[in-house]
Amino acid sequence: MSAAPLPTRDELAAFLLREFPQTRCTIESVGDGEALIRHAVGTPELRPGGTVSGPVMMAAVDVALYIALLGRIGIVPLAVTTDLTIHFLRKPRGDRDILAAGRLLKCGRTLAIGEVTIYSEGSDEPVAHAVGTYAIPPRSA
Amino acid sequence: MSAAPLPTRDELAAFLLREFPQTRCTIESVGDGEALIRHAVGTPELRPGGTVSGPVMMAAVDVALYIALLGRIGIVPLAVTTDLTIHFLRKPRGDRDILAAGRLLKCGRTLAIGEVTIYSEGSDEPVAHAVGTYAIPPRSA
Amino acid sequence: MSAAPLPTRDELAAFLLREFPQTRCTIESVGDGEALIRHAVGTPELRPGGTVSGPVMMAAVDVALYIALLGRIGIVPLAVTTDLTIHFLRKPRGDRDILAAGRLLKCGRTLAIGEVTIYSEGSDEPVAHAVGTYAIPPRSA
Amino acid sequence: MSAAPLPTRDELAAFLLREFPQTRCTIESVGDGEALIRHAVGTPELRPGGTVSGPVMMAAVDVALYIALLGRIGIVPLAVTTDLTIHFLRKPRGDRDILAAGRLLKCGRTLAIGEVTIYSEGSDEPVAHAVGTYAIPPRSA
Repeated sequence: MSAAPLPTRDELAAFLLREFPQTRCTIESVGDGEALIRHAVGTPELRPGGTVSGPVMMAAVDVALYIALLGRIGIVPLAVTTDLTIHFLRKPRGDRDILAAGRLLKCGRTLAIGEVTIYSEGSDEPVAHAVGTYAIPPRSA
Repeated sequence: MSAAPLPTRDELAAFLLREFPQTRCTIESVGDGEALIRHAVGTPELRPGGTVSGPVMMAAVDVALYIALLGRIGIVPLAVTTDLTIHFLRKPRGDRDILAAGRLLKCGRTLAIGEVTIYSEGSDEPVAHAVGTYAIPPRSA
Repeated sequence: MSAAPLPTRDELAAFLLREFPQTRCTIESVGDGEALIRHAVGTPELRPGGTVSGPVMMAAVDVALYIALLGRIGIVPLAVTTDLTIHFLRKPRGDRDILAAGRLLKCGRTLAIGEVTIYSEGSDEPVAHAVGTYAIPPRSA
Repeated sequence: MSAAPLPTRDELAAFLLREFPQTRCTIESVGDGEALIRHAVGTPELRPGGTVSGPVMMAAVDVALYIALLGRIGIVPLAVTTDLTIHFLRKPRGDRDILAAGRLLKCGRTLAIGEVTIYSEGSDEPVAHAVGTYAIPPRSA
């Protein structure tokens, strides 16, 4: 789609910090339409009962899809989420970071759709699953 | 379903603060399976470009459905979100609070389903729309 | 968006029959970004137990959004559904037609998002609720 | 959960035909919380333009999740779909059957959640992706 080289993990990490200075997400790996994101879990992420709040998981989903997409098409800052469906499966542990594994299902010219599975670090039973769409702004040739 | 009187707005507000001490949501009104929630918008809620972040809107959705539900069935602290689908429609304004109007579509014995429309205060064009499900824990007679 | 007059109910009905010759949906009313669709219910629509099958309701949702959209932007045969989320709320009656009330939440240049509430005729308790997106093909000026 | 042996593919196929006598779905394989379903594609499944209609794909999704679930918990005829989210990714081919690969993400006591990926036979690019929930009726001990 573009002759420019795809961004590296470090370039995407720098972009993420610039665009979302308050994020607690970091990029574990990215490439081939996939991204693995870590969201730190500490006091701000917890709900009474010691579990991770829903909006924290939704933030991780959003970043996982965004980085999977930018790793595929290059840094396009104006891509926006148009829909997100999340199913909460199990209680995440309050003493572990969460990991969000995103994977594009389709990357078209104007829409990209992907799915994300969220885990508590150290467990392979998913705590949430999401699917969402990003709208990609028109790009000049 | 219960002979106990339904909770007032003040009782629900106290409960919300107890269960979610970090929330920036307040209850404008509640009753008849509906709730209107205000989410303050300030620096922590903004993304570069001056718009409200997606997770902030998702947090408002979650609270709007939860309070609509508790206003209908009484304070049941263990109800949990099982799914949430959100469509982002327009950019919310960065200089206005957001208002989330929740309404139950069905309130069964074990599942409650509702929809939420989100506005920037002062505009009647929705910025987001969501639908979600809460699982209600079994209650003794 | 266009100087051409918007299509009438009869023009949309003729289009629907041409494009979906097997449909059992008819248009009750259309206009202002809304459409009310009737789906006949007879033996082909029923499941054992005497209730209307899920795919029948999904077909009605799809037509309700499509006609609401075409009533707003004119007949654009290439618009395609990109996502659909449906919540099943109550058992529809097997001896009544279903009515699907669709309403656009946003009609942009490339995406239209709407919601649909489904009823069994004669009841005002919804049997299903859906939200979905249509992608609109680029139109020349 | 039960001492009874899990149903075989043939038992599930017989059940499917009994409960959905009109279905055009057949079971390719089932087990371990997964099911692979084939939906025949012929004239009744096609839309003008020679593609498979959305409701046909939704019917295949529904059967794939249902059979994956029954293969895990045994034949429980009263399980009902409570929500379904589908993203349409690419045009399915009109001259190929569709295959729906369902997989449970969680199978709890009262709710089971799963995802389904749909392909046109012979291609490994998905044409649709869905996620949905089944409510499982209470079972006596």
